Amino acid sequence: MPHTSAAFASDNAAPAHPAALDAVIAANHGALPSYGADAITRRAVERIRETFESPQGRVLFAFTGTAANIIALSAAVRPWDEILCSDIAHSLMDEAGGPVRVSGASLVPLPSDDGIIDPDLLTRRIARRGEVHHSQPRIVSITQSTENGRVWQPDTLAAFIDHAHRLDLLVHVDGARIANAIAALGVTPAEAIGDADIVTVGGTKIGMVFGDAILVRRPEHFTGIEFTQKQIGHLASKHRYVSAQFDAMLTDGEWLRAAAHANALAARLSTGMTDLGLQLASPTEANEIFVDLNPDTLDAVREHFTVHVPDPHKAAARFVCSWATTDEDVDAALGVLRRTASDRRRR
Amino acid sequence: MPHTSAAFASDNAAPAHPAALDAVIAANHGALPSYGADAITRRAVERIRETFESPQGRVLFAFTGTAANIIALSAAVRPWDEILCSDIAHSLMDEAGGPVRVSGASLVPLPSDDGIIDPDLLTRRIARRGEVHHSQPRIVSITQSTENGRVWQPDTLAAFIDHAHRLDLLVHVDGARIANAIAALGVTPAEAIGDADIVTVGGTKIGMVFGDAILVRRPEHFTGIEFTQKQIGHLASKHRYVSAQFDAMLTDGEWLRAAAHANALAARLSTGMTDLGLQLASPTEANEIFVDLNPDTLDAVREHFTVHVPDPHKAAARFVCSWATTDEDVDAALGVLRRTASDRRRR
Amino acid sequence: MPHTSAAFASDNAAPAHPAALDAVIAANHGALPSYGADAITRRAVERIRETFESPQGRVLFAFTGTAANIIALSAAVRPWDEILCSDIAHSLMDEAGGPVRVSGASLVPLPSDDGIIDPDLLTRRIARRGEVHHSQPRIVSITQSTENGRVWQPDTLAAFIDHAHRLDLLVHVDGARIANAIAALGVTPAEAIGDADIVTVGGTKIGMVFGDAILVRRPEHFTGIEFTQKQIGHLASKHRYVSAQFDAMLTDGEWLRAAAHANALAARLSTGMTDLGLQLASPTEANEIFVDLNPDTLDAVREHFTVHVPDPHKAAARFVCSWATTDEDVDAALGVLRRTASDRRRR
Amino acid sequence: MPHTSAAFASDNAAPAHPAALDAVIAANHGALPSYGADAITRRAVERIRETFESPQGRVLFAFTGTAANIIALSAAVRPWDEILCSDIAHSLMDEAGGPVRVSGASLVPLPSDDGIIDPDLLTRRIARRGEVHHSQPRIVSITQSTENGRVWQPDTLAAFIDHAHRLDLLVHVDGARIANAIAALGVTPAEAIGDADIVTVGGTKIGMVFGDAILVRRPEHFTGIEFTQKQIGHLASKHRYVSAQFDAMLTDGEWLRAAAHANALAARLSTGMTDLGLQLASPTEANEIFVDLNPDTLDAVREHFTVHVPDPHKAAARFVCSWATTDEDVDAALGVLRRTASDRRRR
Repeated sequence: MPHTSAAFASDNAAPAHPAALDAVIAANHGALPSYGADAITRRAVERIRETFESPQGRVLFAFTGTAANIIALSAAVRPWDEILCSDIAHSLMDEAGGPVRVSGASLVPLPSDDGIIDPDLLTRRIARRGEVHHSQPRIVSITQSTENGRVWQPDTLAAFIDHAHRLDLLVHVDGARIANAIAALGVTPAEAIGDADIVTVGGTKIGMVFGDAILVRRPEHFTGIEFTQKQIGHLASKHRYVSAQFDAMLTDGEWLRAAAHANALAARLSTGMTDLGLQLASPTEANEIFVDLNPDTLDAVREHFTVHVPDPHKAAARFVCSWATTDEDVDAALGVLRRTASDRRRR
Repeated sequence: MPHTSAAFASDNAAPAHPAALDAVIAANHGALPSYGADAITRRAVERIRETFESPQGRVLFAFTGTAANIIALSAAVRPWDEILCSDIAHSLMDEAGGPVRVSGASLVPLPSDDGIIDPDLLTRRIARRGEVHHSQPRIVSITQSTENGRVWQPDTLAAFIDHAHRLDLLVHVDGARIANAIAALGVTPAEAIGDADIVTVGGTKIGMVFGDAILVRRPEHFTGIEFTQKQIGHLASKHRYVSAQFDAMLTDGEWLRAAAHANALAARLSTGMTDLGLQLASPTEANEIFVDLNPDTLDAVREHFTVHVPDPHKAAARFVCSWATTDEDVDAALGVLRRTASDRRRR
Repeated sequence: MPHTSAAFASDNAAPAHPAALDAVIAANHGALPSYGADAITRRAVERIRETFESPQGRVLFAFTGTAANIIALSAAVRPWDEILCSDIAHSLMDEAGGPVRVSGASLVPLPSDDGIIDPDLLTRRIARRGEVHHSQPRIVSITQSTENGRVWQPDTLAAFIDHAHRLDLLVHVDGARIANAIAALGVTPAEAIGDADIVTVGGTKIGMVFGDAILVRRPEHFTGIEFTQKQIGHLASKHRYVSAQFDAMLTDGEWLRAAAHANALAARLSTGMTDLGLQLASPTEANEIFVDLNPDTLDAVREHFTVHVPDPHKAAARFVCSWATTDEDVDAALGVLRRTASDRRRR
Repeated sequence: MPHTSAAFASDNAAPAHPAALDAVIAANHGALPSYGADAITRRAVERIRETFESPQGRVLFAFTGTAANIIALSAAVRPWDEILCSDIAHSLMDEAGGPVRVSGASLVPLPSDDGIIDPDLLTRRIARRGEVHHSQPRIVSITQSTENGRVWQPDTLAAFIDHAHRLDLLVHVDGARIANAIAALGVTPAEAIGDADIVTVGGTKIGMVFGDAILVRRPEHFTGIEFTQKQIGHLASKHRYVSAQFDAMLTDGEWLRAAAHANALAARLSTGMTDLGLQLASPTEANEIFVDLNPDTLDAVREHFTVHVPDPHKAAARFVCSWATTDEDVDAALGVLRRTASDRRRR
């Protein structure tokens, strides 16, 4: 049996980007104050603020994107509130109910088009606002780029957030793959998140050893967020190691180059698949490809590559490209698919 | 104003130990399965099992010691249970109520001698067992070495755990500084934790970039622990980076050498202090020194060194030595204390 | 402006049934042990067991149906579990997120036909069982009769519960209106709940001053349920007053006569409405009527009667009949509707 | 074996006071709006405001004192806060950890003299305010009269509350037995609660069928409290039955007459005990007596009367008098004690 490659399993299967690892190494000298009271962290905080044009923003770090989401969402709500999200949101599908457990609030899925939510759905959801018998919508979480590899266009995003704000809802952007969205859209980071109130800024998936950040742009709505960060064990004592990586990756657009590379390879792989006659389950707009495979093809792929099958009832497979994916990886994947296709024709 | 050194601020103010950082670097090649399904993690798990002579033990990782404690304790209880701990326990004093929030259970402090708890206190605590009006003791957490720098002697520990077990209480050892305890006691790791049911194995404070482990020795009492780990964002996607460090530090006793170094410098500093006529607030048995300083001396020390003052109502200061503390650091600290003492004599 | 009647507002707008109130009065003599250790409670527990043919069942009381549901559901789950329910379930729509807050678990709505759930939806929901990234289905809650006034037919119910059990899901029946279902179906109480594992037995809506019961038929899956009852303040000290009412209402089928009366008047009102050309939003099968009204008619009705409008975006109104509803109430309601209809024709 | 009387078991072992039961009966006619939107409830709310001279106060009802405490305390805190209370507080000792589970916050006991807390202990407790590593004191709960049958003198109470307020702590008064305190002190209800921010007003123990109220005197610090009330199932649908009882008992001081009776009998029983040479464990200041009994005497008492033994390690027994306790009950209790004493002398 051949070796199975994790090259397309997830962007978090990739090793750390050299710039991130070098930053860890460079930070490793001398005793420094713990828990973020160090100069490296101050610089990283400033870097994130500048990157997203949020000079008044508050920045906290967490070890994982799951944690960053949980901290951000929990800080917005009381236990009788509702957190709205799309029906494919990572917070709903892949955080094991963590946002619910930590916040005590209800997590309410809204129908979506690959994670893109129609703003009219928000209007309907607030129908019972103020009624003590019903939980109360407080924040809506959207993902940029979405869990199905789509991007929110800046005007769609702006209209959605504006509508949410008019309904007195806060807006969270889960930016676990925000760099991929920025690179795909060709906009500034600030444009890619619009007027969101709080943002999870992905570090792990873009190439860090570990670490995601939380950018709180309207801190008055997220009081005590630092306690939730601490209470679930995400206030790093050796803070420098997470902040140094952010500082390095965000300097000179390093993270966006990594994202552009991942997106480009995803585009090439996606095009290759459609050229082979395969059907995409979602349009490829960032670094993730969702493709319908018949069971035989899926089995054949899995002899060579680990791929995620989001819904066990469907044979649609997910391929994710990262900063570390190579042209050879793409060629190999297309090769497997091509051979399977021709096998089928011969039969 | 002179530069303030963090050399004694905490063992988590130190940089990463070379062996830990080298392990991160060595792990950084190629795509690997996420979430712990990689060979590096398998090896680290095996290493931890061997180190603590727990071949059937289950091993999970967390990014911080706070998280490891929260996960371990929460997995043991239902929301009507009680978690017992000492009156100076990190879980009680320095985790911001995290164990309570995540578990919903009550955290009940017991009087202690620098963290060493008289087992008879347990007997009294179970008086209302089975009574629906009262929360129910389920697990007791002790710390080795304690938050005040003391160590549980193996026979004291064995008697305590045995008593707890006879009362049908589970036992957790918070081993954030377990290496320091092992080195100080000159026993095997297994002897330093006795018959504990679950152990937080400290990585961060002994020199890792980040990371602590949870060793579950009686998994039947901690079902679902992996969900709590996930639900508070501590299931690392790039698992290799935490596990590789554990593997490296536990190989050939690297962590115990680091601990012995820290302990030795702490002993030298402690002796130097008593030679200067200072009074220790707790005996120095591992890598932490608690010394009573009058306010003037404390101010003078703080011009040169960051030191923690656990109780704002007392002038007792804590000095912590780490793998990275040097003889020069110790000499400098003693020099400051000596000058302050002679200043006082002159006046 | 005319007086507005609450006769159809809800079955909990009705006064207490004489049998229930008389039981309270009869219980009011002498000092009795608190918290359920009295003979009246023992007799009521036995009565509930007999009524539902559950000799091994465990019985607890709560002051409200909301509380009974929360206690029952919370006792089944850990915080990483899922509670499944219909998209119109009281637990989802009208308990303000209480089951989520108290349990920490996720509450997951399933599409339904007026609260009747297709069992195949359960199969799909367990697709990610055992996967640590996703919350875990543990119990499904159904309502008999449903929130839209429908009843589960015994064979439909049996098939659903059987399917749930084969998928290793527990089943809760929210029986806030179980008496109405029993009376409507003409079956035994045991047949109306099938092989459910835990049942909320409604007392308030059938005519008690206050109080609902929880019948735990498989206690081994609900360990510690008595602590949750206590922890949210539903272990009555003066237990006799809730249990005496249950004993009285369940004796000689008093509660079923009350339910049959409510159902019969609902049927008459429903038929009268359709005779007037109105459209029912759901079939009338127990004591609740859901009828589509145009905005003018709704306004006219509301001048005379308080009626609930479940969805603010629709003009469908709910009329509920109780043990206390009279033929005169029904005539008055039909009169208002008739006049509004003829007004419209004239215009 | 003789019949065992519950006359002194607790004030909640007594039947309902005629005024309370009559109010339930009187309220039992006609359909009324649910959930508190009825005229009876409006009048009861006004009555409670007047009684406590709190015209701006917000009033909510709960079915039990445990629930009233949980709702009041939970509404004050976020999960990183601390609720301070005495070491014998009902919330700590007899609510099964409910306040912790529902709020997620830590419940911190302070040493006390029979429930009377030295205000200086508050000062010490706020030493780590603002520090993210530690939970944050937010509200202190005191009990009037205390769980050991003592009363807070108005000046002691005023000084305590004033000190708490200067430390930016809110103050909750658990008034499960507030009527007994008012009657014992001979002050107005407002004087008995001082400048407390929120008060649990006991109804059950003074003679109601069920029900306690929450008087929120500074509603701005308890936003959303109505959601917590709903989320744990204490928003009564048939609200009239709890509010009517409060209205009746508070009219013309009915509840204070009931309390004065209970206090007077407790005083007589207490004096009788000391005349017999028995030692009180706490001074008798309201309607509870705590007396040290040797094991033989305790056994003899228990042949005739159910008495509570708060601490299983001590033979101190609690006798509680209620509105329904009679002189004959007191004589019978003293008779048992006298016989036991003379038996001992004979031996």
